[in-house]
Amino acid sequence: MTEPRFQYDAIGSIRTPFESPEEMPIQPIGADDAVGTVEVDPSYAEGLEDLDGFTHCILLYHFHVTDDTVSLQVEPFLDDTNRGLFATRAPQRPNPIGLSVVEINSVTDHEVTVEGIDVVDGTPLLDIKPFVPQFDVPDAAETGWLDASKSTIQSKRADDRFL
Amino acid sequence: MTEPRFQYDAIGSIRTPFESPEEMPIQPIGADDAVGTVEVDPSYAEGLEDLDGFTHCILLYHFHVTDDTVSLQVEPFLDDTNRGLFATRAPQRPNPIGLSVVEINSVTDHEVTVEGIDVVDGTPLLDIKPFVPQFDVPDAAETGWLDASKSTIQSKRADDRFL
Repeated sequence: MTEPRFQYDAIGSIRTPFESPEEMPIQPIGADDAVGTVEVDPSYAEGLEDLDGFTHCILLYHFHVTDDTVSLQVEPFLDDTNRGLFATRAPQRPNPIGLSVVEINSVTDHEVTVEGIDVVDGTPLLDIKPFVPQFDVPDAAETGWLDASKSTIQSKRADDRFL
Repeated sequence: MTEPRFQYDAIGSIRTPFESPEEMPIQPIGADDAVGTVEVDPSYAEGLEDLDGFTHCILLYHFHVTDDTVSLQVEPFLDDTNRGLFATRAPQRPNPIGLSVVEINSVTDHEVTVEGIDVVDGTPLLDIKPFVPQFDVPDAAETGWLDASKSTIQSKRADDRFL
């Protein structure tokens, strides 16, 4: 199997109140109140036009504070059993790309203020996409091992297991 | 602003019935019947464990058939007006990473059979994440310029504008 290599440059960075992954919410749903600023490089400002018409966006970013040891079986924050890596959202992945759906508060020049952010301050930004329920929300979805209740996810905080 | 560069290797590829982007559904919702096979490199097979408990997954992949000319204003398939690139899902992006939510039919060894696939055959795979409504579905989302009806999205096909 061919395995081409791709090079991506950060298009900006994500400023958040979280200086380290420990005690950070593990997902946006647990970070309802956390406000962050997505700063794109000023040269990309024009690309943010029309984004303010959407209530939510998808952020793709590089997990920059995890070490680069990849294990194909991991114990997720929400479980006490090892699970296949691709059945988890653990940051240590062959390609450490993170994904968060966040609420858009405002878009000004080259910055997007977002709510419900769950990443470490200074996280390198790879892409911003509009969140479109018709594209991104299947009719019904079940979640296998991850049957943790919404309240558990909201209260759960990260720890140092992926550092 | 610092702009670190990241290198990612494909972890596999996505096999689909679509040999070219033209006439391909523009999003999974328009590709309900399209079945594809996500082939990860056999060395990653162990990481697919437990994925079969989920009904849907998120595929991240590299848009490999678009040219690399990035325009910050694009005319999306669903509109006839230029829009800010980051308010669209157009493939020509500074970091040409694509994202699709697809239904999981089966997981066997190093292959995941998925339904509702909307990418070109041979698309390089970057990551597979479980789709988790508690993480990935905000309570209410509006979509700005993209008020196209579900039926329009379903019937709309790509063309050569991003080639």
